[in-house]
Amino acid sequence: MSQSDGPLEAGMEKATAVPVMTDTRRSRADRARQVADLLRREIVQGGFGEGRLPLEAALAREFGTSRNTMREALDLLRGEGLVERCPGVGTTVAGEKYPHDLHRLLGLAETLHEHGRVSNEVRTMGLIEPPAAVGRRLGLAAGEPVVYLERLRRLNGLPLSLDLTYLVRDVGEPLFDADLERNDIFVLLEQVTGQPLGTAELTMEAVNADAHTAAVLDAPRGAALLMIERLTHLSDGRPVDLEFVRFRGDRLTMRGHLHRDPEEDTCP
Amino acid sequence: MSQSDGPLEAGMEKATAVPVMTDTRRSRADRARQVADLLRREIVQGGFGEGRLPLEAALAREFGTSRNTMREALDLLRGEGLVERCPGVGTTVAGEKYPHDLHRLLGLAETLHEHGRVSNEVRTMGLIEPPAAVGRRLGLAAGEPVVYLERLRRLNGLPLSLDLTYLVRDVGEPLFDADLERNDIFVLLEQVTGQPLGTAELTMEAVNADAHTAAVLDAPRGAALLMIERLTHLSDGRPVDLEFVRFRGDRLTMRGHLHRDPEEDTCP
Repeated sequence: MSQSDGPLEAGMEKATAVPVMTDTRRSRADRARQVADLLRREIVQGGFGEGRLPLEAALAREFGTSRNTMREALDLLRGEGLVERCPGVGTTVAGEKYPHDLHRLLGLAETLHEHGRVSNEVRTMGLIEPPAAVGRRLGLAAGEPVVYLERLRRLNGLPLSLDLTYLVRDVGEPLFDADLERNDIFVLLEQVTGQPLGTAELTMEAVNADAHTAAVLDAPRGAALLMIERLTHLSDGRPVDLEFVRFRGDRLTMRGHLHRDPEEDTCP
Repeated sequence: MSQSDGPLEAGMEKATAVPVMTDTRRSRADRARQVADLLRREIVQGGFGEGRLPLEAALAREFGTSRNTMREALDLLRGEGLVERCPGVGTTVAGEKYPHDLHRLLGLAETLHEHGRVSNEVRTMGLIEPPAAVGRRLGLAAGEPVVYLERLRRLNGLPLSLDLTYLVRDVGEPLFDADLERNDIFVLLEQVTGQPLGTAELTMEAVNADAHTAAVLDAPRGAALLMIERLTHLSDGRPVDLEFVRFRGDRLTMRGHLHRDPEEDTCP
């Protein structure tokens, strides 16, 4: 508490000379969060080559904060499963976090090919009569069956996501004979239909894992999951693939870019 | 358990005639997750007008599942904070979940203007000497100060996100005199610089809220947060705004679309 603060806090104090300064008495928890966010990025980007972080004192200096604040920041990152802390050993990176590309519509194996091997465990697959909510989104008449597929997806052997997939029948049935263990659905759909995929509408949310999902993904109960719902169309516009994907939040980062003026920026 | 299953499970049984059928003995937890995902979307899209869901039995029929499975699905959604369940009253929608547009680079008030009023509580603002990690990303020389800004953002009075923002000095300092409470930073940056924003690189993750962040956002400890890091450039390419945003997972959905072939689809 009484430890001297580094440049970050010192800087905040300097700001008393600046017109608006609503709060000079920030709590250590606020400062720790601020530092944790900066450290998180360094870690995820592999900024600490050998997987071991510098000592607390050195990190505190580098990030311009006190050792107490740095310790609390590292505790926050431990809470996220990003680092491990052992007395005598220090702070080590707990596991890799992989970037999923949001620039274009890609399957998991396609986007992570540089990071290792994606393998898919098919948990169930079959023809079902879908609820009306599914049929409507896939543009089907009432009662038309769809292929339902559920996969646990691993990267380098570690559970990454649980995917629930509804496919229109003519496109989904040929997949009964496909190598689903080693291939993205997207790639198989293009092979089966002989046409490229077009666009997908997606929503992304953060949800806590229920007990059963946590067990399937080998994550702690309540772990934050990145949940994606995605409706994918063929290039002719027909919706063929409705998916609900739960990614382990500690293993995946979505990465993309946005344009203020989409038309101007993408068509130079 | 012994209750008769609806069409969804009946459909799965029919699939025994289909070549690949890896698991016909799915657990109720698996079926409940499947149903919950479909219900989640109906709820988020306002499919249940008055905020009250039909009775379990009716929902079970509609989604082609057993009442036990439907009950478990509703429990999952209660766990996500999406619905409330009261004996005698039934299931009601707990709170609105708002769509944040991912089609283009937009501030919170810009993207949610149809859903209500965004207000920003400035928790701290001042000139600081940033850690090297911040200076590097903003393309600054060592020791160059930046404006640090921390805001709790509310929609219709309810906490939605906690935003940590670093702005390059010449762009950030004029904001000391701006109405930060009622305006998006993006809009103010365009006013101050007299040029439109260009592009932003962003990463999205799901993380669990630490105790202090949870308290600030008025969410349960460990609640899933959608965490965004975003580096925004002016249209001339200069990076000016580095942000770390924590959205309450139960209040926000990111919504966008992806193209299989980005160039072909955006330039018809």
